[in-house]
This record gives sequence, C-alpha cells and structure tokens, in this order.
Amino acid sequence: MVERPIDALDRAKGKKVFLKLKNGEEISGTLKALDLHLNLWIENAEIQGENKKKFSIMLIRGDNILYASPE
Amino acid sequence: MVERPIDALDRAKGKKVFLKLKNGEEISGTLKALDLHLNLWIENAEIQGENKKKFSIMLIRGDNILYASPE
Amino acid sequence: MVERPIDALDRAKGKKVFLKLKNGEEISGTLKALDLHLNLWIENAEIQGENKKKFSIMLIRGDNILYASPE
Amino acid sequence: MVERPIDALDRAKGKKVFLKLKNGEEISGTLKALDLHLNLWIENAEIQGENKKKFSIMLIRGDNILYASPE
Amino acid sequence: MVERPIDALDRAKGKKVFLKLKNGEEISGTLKALDLHLNLWIENAEIQGENKKKFSIMLIRGDNILYASPE
Amino acid sequence: MVERPIDALDRAKGKKVFLKLKNGEEISGTLKALDLHLNLWIENAEIQGENKKKFSIMLIRGDNILYASPE
Amino acid sequence: MVERPIDALDRAKGKKVFLKLKNGEEISGTLKALDLHLNLWIENAEIQGENKKKFSIMLIRGDNILYASPE
Repeated sequence: MVERPIDALDRAKGKKVFLKLKNGEEISGTLKALDLHLNLWIENAEIQGENKKKFSIMLIRGDNILYASPE
Repeated sequence: MVERPIDALDRAKGKKVFLKLKNGEEISGTLKALDLHLNLWIENAEIQGENKKKFSIMLIRGDNILYASPE
Repeated sequence: MVERPIDALDRAKGKKVFLKLKNGEEISGTLKALDLHLNLWIENAEIQGENKKKFSIMLIRGDNILYASPE
Repeated sequence: MVERPIDALDRAKGKKVFLKLKNGEEISGTLKALDLHLNLWIENAEIQGENKKKFSIMLIRGDNILYASPE
Repeated sequence: MVERPIDALDRAKGKKVFLKLKNGEEISGTLKALDLHLNLWIENAEIQGENKKKFSIMLIRGDNILYASPE
Repeated sequence: MVERPIDALDRAKGKKVFLKLKNGEEISGTLKALDLHLNLWIENAEIQGENKKKFSIMLIRGDNILYASPE
Repeated sequence: MVERPIDALDRAKGKKVFLKLKNGEEISGTLKALDLHLNLWIENAEIQGENKKKFSIMLIRGDNILYASPE
C-alpha cells in the first residue's frame, strides 16, 4: 500500500516520466533518482515544444515541478 | 472530530477530488496519497480546460495547490 | 485574553468566515479546522465573483491566505 | 530599551496601526495580537481605497505584510 | 573585525539608513532595531517618491528588503 | 548506484555543465563545487545570449536554478 | 581544495565582486562579509545602469542574489 506520494514516485525509478514545470515547460525522460524536495535526476531528457532540446542527463531542482507522471 | 485540515483531507483517500492550482489549472482525479506538504498522488487525473489531458497516475507538488475539494 | 492570532481564529471554528486569497479570490464558508500554516478546512464554501462555485467541503492551502475574517 | 522589532510592535497592542501589504492594499485597525511570523489579529479593520471594506475582526497572514506602523 | 553582515548592520543602530525594497520603494529613517530575518524597526521613516509619506515609527518585514545602507 | 540527485551532480565536478536559470538565462562553465541548496561555484562561466558575458569564477545562488546538465 | 561554494566566495573577502540581482540590478563593490544565506556586506558599492548610485557601505539581503563573481 502506498504511504507517501514521494514513495509512490520513487517506484517509478527506471521508467519514463512526463514532467510539467511551473514555468510551463514540459520535459520527458527516464527517472533515475529523486529526493524529498523532488529534485530529480533525469536521463535522456527531452524539453518539449518549439525550443526542443535533448540532454543525456540533467538535474531538475525540485521547486520547479508542477507535476510528474510516470508512464 | 476533525483535528487538522490535512487529517480531514486524508479521510478522502480513495475518493474523487477536485483540485485548483495556483496557476489556474483545474485537475480532477482519485486521491491515493498525500503528505504534510500537500504533495498529492492522484489516479486517473484529468487536467480540465482547453488543453484537456489525462494521466493514469501523477504526483502534484504540494506548493502548487490552491484548494482541494473531495466530492 | 488573546495570545496568538491563530488561537484567536481557532475560536471561530463552527462559525462562518470570509476569506480573501492572495490571487484576489474571495471565499466564504464555515471554518471546521485550521493548523499553524493556516491550512483551512471549510464547509459549504462559496467562491465569490463571476465564476461563482460551491463546494460542500474544501481544504485551502494556508500560503494562499491574505486574510480571514470571522462573521 | 527595544531589543527586537517584533517586541517593539508588540508594545503597540491595543493601539491603532496602519498596515501596508505587499499587494498594495492598505489596512488600518486596532492591533490585538501578533506572532513571530507577523500574523496579525486586527479589530475594526478598514481596507482603504476604492473598494473600502470594514471587518470587525480579521487575521492577516504575516507573509503579506510590507510594513506596519503604530499611530 | 566584521563577522556577519547582520552584525555589521547592527552597529548602525541609532543612525540614519537608506532602504531599497524589492517592490522598488525607497525608505529612509533611523534604525532602532533589527533581527536575523532583517525585520527592521525604523523611526522617522520617510517613504520616498511621488507618494511621499512619513511615519513616526514602523516595522518593515525583513523579506521585503533589497538592500540597506547606513549613512 | 545513484542515491540522490545532488550526489549524482556532485560526480560532475571538474566537468562542463549547462545551466538553465528560472529567469531564462543560460550559463555554461566548469562545475567546481555545489551544496545541498544547489549553490554552485562555476569556473569559466559564460552567460549565453545577446548579452554574452564571461566570468572567470562565479557563485550562483541555488534557488535560481531550473536545471543543470553535465556534458 | 574548495568544499562549499560559500567557502569559495568567502575567500574573496577584501576583493571587488560583481553582483547580479534577481531584479536585474547590477552592483559592484568590495566584499566585506557574508553569511550562509548569502547576505552580503559590501563597501564602496556602485549600482550600475541608468540610475547609477554609490553607497559607502550596504547590506544586500541574500535572497536577492542571482550570482556573485569576484574579480
């Protein structure tokens, strides 16, 4: 049984996640690590939209996250 | 008797909730888990409005929440 | 004698309160519970204004509150 | 001798204070209680300006305060 | 020798200071007290600019401060 | 195995990183040091864009970071 | 060897630093003291730009800092 939302997201490690940031940016990639602030370590990250960009690895600071959805 | 607002919301686990975010977005879905920061784990989430989107599961970072109303 | 502002508001539990939020929204309803962050549990909440809406019960995250006035 | 700014404001309890909020609103009323976050409990509060409003009692969440001046 | 910036400002108690706030407002007055959050207790405060105003005494909540300069 | 996102970024010390800030600025440079707030110490920093600027060394306050990607 | 970004900046005490603030203001001056919040005590501070101003001494509240670069 799920206890905390962050424990639930933690089970998605190794899977692809869709991220919506507070500034409107959308990022998809593989969740490799997270902490209690929702700092995320993402592999094969792809910034969506007109300014599409790819990063082999990136840390997203947790306070930018609006929501995170595992596929 | 209700003690804390978060304990009250906790009793809505398993029920459908309507969420209004600070950025104006409205989301409805089933509340699966929450913590003291109001991080929420939502199942069958539906982002309302013109850009309607569905997510089978999502974590919403608590500091984005304006209000949450169980049905 | 009143000691802390939150203790003072706590004595309004069960009464109708008027809430002004930082985003300009105005909400009235019955105060059922509160905590030190000013998270509020409101019954029969009514969002004022053009987009009038009613909620039988709602949690408002405390950091959205501008002021709260018991009737 | 004054030690801390909040102790100094505390001595204004029972007196009329003028409050300027971060959103530009101006409120005057009688200071009844305060805490370390600058949450204020105000009696006979009057919101200044075009949308003049009166409240017999109100709690203002401290993080909205720009400055507070006792008369 | 100066240790911490706040200790340095503390030595300006009793002197005139110029304050620039995050919202652009400029205030000058005599520094009477301060704390670790930079809450300031100012005597003979004068809000600069078009809407010039004077306050015999005021508390400025520390999180509004951009910078403070003793004369 | 990676444990925390910040430990993962820590392994990039000495390498070139690309930084996107919340205000939209983009900075590249060599990561020399970081802490838990994501305060970063960057060598040979280059602010991208129209107002291109170079700094031999700089500290970026962590709360400005949107994301950081090691090359 | 550098351990923390703030220790690294601390070694610049007595030197000239260039500061970029979150609101876009640029300030240069001699770093005299700093703390863990990045509150800075600056001597011979000069606000750059159209509204050029000089201050013999100033405290800048740390949460306004975007980045700081020693010369």
